[in-house]
Amino acid sequence: MPGPAPAQVGRLLLVPNTLDLGSGVEVPLDQVLPRAVIEQAAGLGHWVAENARSARALLKRVDALVPLALPLQSIQIQELPRPRKGAGPNQAAPDLAPLLAPALAGHDIGLVSEAGLPGVADPGATLVAAAHAASLVVEPLAGPSSLLLALAGSGLNGQSFAFVGYLPIEATARAARIRELEALSRRQGQTQIAIETPYRNDALLAALLEHLQPGTRLAVASGLSLPQGRCSSRSVAAWRALRGHAQAHALGDRLPAVFLFLAG
Amino acid sequence: MPGPAPAQVGRLLLVPNTLDLGSGVEVPLDQVLPRAVIEQAAGLGHWVAENARSARALLKRVDALVPLALPLQSIQIQELPRPRKGAGPNQAAPDLAPLLAPALAGHDIGLVSEAGLPGVADPGATLVAAAHAASLVVEPLAGPSSLLLALAGSGLNGQSFAFVGYLPIEATARAARIRELEALSRRQGQTQIAIETPYRNDALLAALLEHLQPGTRLAVASGLSLPQGRCSSRSVAAWRALRGHAQAHALGDRLPAVFLFLAG
Repeated sequence: MPGPAPAQVGRLLLVPNTLDLGSGVEVPLDQVLPRAVIEQAAGLGHWVAENARSARALLKRVDALVPLALPLQSIQIQELPRPRKGAGPNQAAPDLAPLLAPALAGHDIGLVSEAGLPGVADPGATLVAAAHAASLVVEPLAGPSSLLLALAGSGLNGQSFAFVGYLPIEATARAARIRELEALSRRQGQTQIAIETPYRNDALLAALLEHLQPGTRLAVASGLSLPQGRCSSRSVAAWRALRGHAQAHALGDRLPAVFLFLAG
Repeated sequence: MPGPAPAQVGRLLLVPNTLDLGSGVEVPLDQVLPRAVIEQAAGLGHWVAENARSARALLKRVDALVPLALPLQSIQIQELPRPRKGAGPNQAAPDLAPLLAPALAGHDIGLVSEAGLPGVADPGATLVAAAHAASLVVEPLAGPSSLLLALAGSGLNGQSFAFVGYLPIEATARAARIRELEALSRRQGQTQIAIETPYRNDALLAALLEHLQPGTRLAVASGLSLPQGRCSSRSVAAWRALRGHAQAHALGDRLPAVFLFLAG
C-alpha cells in the first residue's frame, strides 16, 4: 500500500495590516479590515512577517474578534530578512526557501508587513516573487493602502500616478529631486506620491513648499483611517498663504504621512 | 429669537466599492469591505456616484448586512458628470457645486465609483478637488484597490511604481508605448501598471509578450478578490515558453485584469 497522498501545497496569502503603527492609537480592526480577512488570518498557523513582534500584536487583535485556530505561542512566525543596505529591489534572494517550506508541506502561509499591504512600499516583494517561482498560488487579500487612500483623498489625478518612495534627505539633493519630479509631473500629467519617516514630515512639507511652483497642487494626508487623520489639498500658493497657521502646517512627528503633488 | 443654529457642514466620505463589477459573481461585501465602512455606508442619505444604478446595487447589498438608515428610494443619488471626450484630468469643473450642496446643508455625502476606491483609475477626483476647494473635510474610507492588490500579488517592485492607465489600442502606437514604458522601467527600476477593458485583455497580453524583452518580469492579475481570481508572475521568456498552454494565457473577456511589468 502506498503511503499517504502528498499533502496539497499551501498558498501564500498576503494579509493586510492596519495603518496605525506607531500612532499611539489602536483602530478597531473591523474599521480597516474586512471580516473575511480577519477570519482567514485567525485560521493561519504559519506566518512570514516584516516584524514578528508587530505580527503577534496583530494576531492578538484578531483573536479578540475571531478566536485563533491555534494558541498564539504555537503559531510559527518567521521574519523576512532585512534588506541589505545599498542592495536594489531585485537583489537575489537565495535564502527565502525556508520561509516557504510550510507551504510545500501543505500549509497556507500568511505574509504580513507592519502596515497596509505587504510588498507595497514595504519589504515582502521578494518573498512573493519566490512564491511565484515555486509555483505557489499567491492570493492578495483585500485591505487598505495608505498610498491609495491618500491618492483618493487628494483629488489629484488618479488616472496617472507614480509612487517614488522617499526623497533624499540632504537639502540640495532633495530640492533637485523635487524639481525633477515636478517637471515630470507637468510633462506627463502624473501625480507624484512620496512618503517620509514621520519625524521628518514637517521638514519635507517645508521643502516642498519652498521648491514647488505656486500653481502646483500639493496634498498631504496623515494618519488616514485614524481618528486624528486628515487630508489637505490645495495649490502651493494657497499653502504658502497659510504660513503662520500652525494648524495647517504642523503634521507632527508620530503619524505616517503621504505627500502628493501634481504640477498645474 | 434667532432661527435654528446653522447645521454643521457635512463631510465627503470616499466609500470603496467591491471589485466584482461585471464578473457575474457577487462577492460577499464583508470579504472586501471593513464592517465599519459598511455601517457608515448604511447611514448615508446622500450620494454622488459614478453610476447611480450600480450605487443602488451596492446599497442593496449593504442593506442585507446593515439595514439602511433611510429607505433606498429616499436616498439621494446624484451622478458624476461623464468626462468629456478629449478633456484632460484637470479640466475645469464648474458644475460640481450642486453635487456638494447636501454637505453645505449639513449632510455627509458618500462618493462611490463602480469598483474600488473612487478617484483612482476612475472618475471622482474632480469632485474631491471641489470638496477641498469648498473646505469640506474629505475622508477616504479603507477599502481595496485592484491596482495595489495586483502590485502586492505580483512580487514586482513595490517601492517604486507607476500607474499608466490604458495603453493605445492601435498596434503600432501600442508597441511603441510598451517599449517606452519598458525603457522607463529599466532606467528607474519602476514597476509599470496598466489596465485594459476586459474584452481586450487577451490582446493586450499578446502584445506585451510580443514587444517586451525576455528578461522583463510580467505579472497579470485578474479577478482579484473573486473566487476565480488569479495572479501570475514570471519572466517574459517563461511566459513565452507557456505558449500553447491555453490555461496560462486565456484571461477571458469578463474579468477586469491588471498588467504589471518590471524590466530586468
